[in-house]
Amino acid sequence: MKKYKRNQRIGALMKIFSERPNHIFSYNYFSEIFNSAKSTISEDIVIVKNIVEEFNYGEIKTIAGASGGVVFTPKIKKDEIKKIQEELCSVFSDKKRIIPGGFIYMTDIFNNPYYVQNIAKIIVSMYEDKEIDYVVTVETKGIPAALMTAKEMDVPLVVIRRNTKVTEGSTLSINYVSGSSNKIQTMTLSRRALKENSKVLIVDDFMKGGGTVRGMKDMMSEFNVEVEGVSVVISTKEPKKKLFTDYNSLLLLEKVDEENKLIVIKPNKLQGF
Amino acid sequence: MKKYKRNQRIGALMKIFSERPNHIFSYNYFSEIFNSAKSTISEDIVIVKNIVEEFNYGEIKTIAGASGGVVFTPKIKKDEIKKIQEELCSVFSDKKRIIPGGFIYMTDIFNNPYYVQNIAKIIVSMYEDKEIDYVVTVETKGIPAALMTAKEMDVPLVVIRRNTKVTEGSTLSINYVSGSSNKIQTMTLSRRALKENSKVLIVDDFMKGGGTVRGMKDMMSEFNVEVEGVSVVISTKEPKKKLFTDYNSLLLLEKVDEENKLIVIKPNKLQGF
Repeated sequence: MKKYKRNQRIGALMKIFSERPNHIFSYNYFSEIFNSAKSTISEDIVIVKNIVEEFNYGEIKTIAGASGGVVFTPKIKKDEIKKIQEELCSVFSDKKRIIPGGFIYMTDIFNNPYYVQNIAKIIVSMYEDKEIDYVVTVETKGIPAALMTAKEMDVPLVVIRRNTKVTEGSTLSINYVSGSSNKIQTMTLSRRALKENSKVLIVDDFMKGGGTVRGMKDMMSEFNVEVEGVSVVISTKEPKKKLFTDYNSLLLLEKVDEENKLIVIKPNKLQGF
Repeated sequence: MKKYKRNQRIGALMKIFSERPNHIFSYNYFSEIFNSAKSTISEDIVIVKNIVEEFNYGEIKTIAGASGGVVFTPKIKKDEIKKIQEELCSVFSDKKRIIPGGFIYMTDIFNNPYYVQNIAKIIVSMYEDKEIDYVVTVETKGIPAALMTAKEMDVPLVVIRRNTKVTEGSTLSINYVSGSSNKIQTMTLSRRALKENSKVLIVDDFMKGGGTVRGMKDMMSEFNVEVEGVSVVISTKEPKKKLFTDYNSLLLLEKVDEENKLIVIKPNKLQGF
């Protein structure tokens, strides 16, 4: 069987950890793919640990016990957060994005893998001390950002639907009042989607009145699931009084002036930073 | 300014390339973050190239010219594809997934970052000789697999909606006939979503009659965009005669026997493998 040199193993380890952050890999797993003794892998891990610390990429942790192993927990630097927030503000506030009615065209940004990966990195960093079992969102625009968040956390994503689908099996539906339009709407989720007593993080793209997020939180209660946090990419300054208040928002939309073609959107102060 | 050792730079390079495959990074970019001369970076790249080849991870290519740089193009091994296909067949064919009406509950798999990343790796490998500008899907269940495909290709994702939304600006809508239900349905897409004369890859979760994919292809014609390929995760054996035939399917659903609690689903022969 093939043997690898140390710098080759180090490179491979960095790739494996980067592709699946927060996943616990067993020493056995590395022993097999590298065809090396566990003691050799341990020495490699020490070097990888050093690289990760040297570049402030986060932390490599060794977990003891039967289900133990090694895990890479990424950490984002404060100045990197600021840079991402500013880049997002700059793309979102392009005046060409103004749509009749004072709306902003945002879909392309929320579907862009580069932007949603950056968004996810920030969101994950705010909840790194919490144990999250699922990331939960509601269709459609928030799905990419929520998926990347789930990927960074190495947990499944759960998508609440607007309508009941036959392919979801038995479902639980709730009605909620949209905070911005005051209309009654429905959301529905398969009864199989969440395990009781688990902990979830809610992620959504945009919050105005807060009704949708409040609906999601109510739905989580129906599933006997605890909401550990709520993170939205953009929240609006108005209305000040929202139906849901305990959330983190990456950006704050202060103003859309359709007549003068102006969008004012700013980085928000983040929890823990 | 901080200087890094060679093995530290190698580790960082592997991380950077793994997190953004198919993206061209300039030598300047690396010079700046490592605070090293371009000649040093060139030597590092040679080592990274060797690591990537040694482990059959794909290819590191150097692109000359003003917009040139270095790019990591991942390649998946044939036996890895087989392993992923078999793992997917095994999770999809769990008899507990059978839903009244002969449907299969698949949502959790299509929302699982680990599975959709694996699915994306296979899809990307089938189109590595094509130039793709966008990955296109239709809401909702296919979004995660399509997003991961777009991420691996370093291109934007475009999501066709079922209903017109005010936040999409002016839209283009088409009607199509669902191949399985024979009903007339609508799909709609913002006129801003795609640039004319670009090339797209269509990705969807499930294909039965082929009507939805045919609708997507018709919509792409309306945008003057060329469809370079169509990839679905699962297609059904019946009906044999589908409204759309030129597609790649990772898995083939042969039978759902509700009475005897049996799902038969098999790896499909893939284009180019």
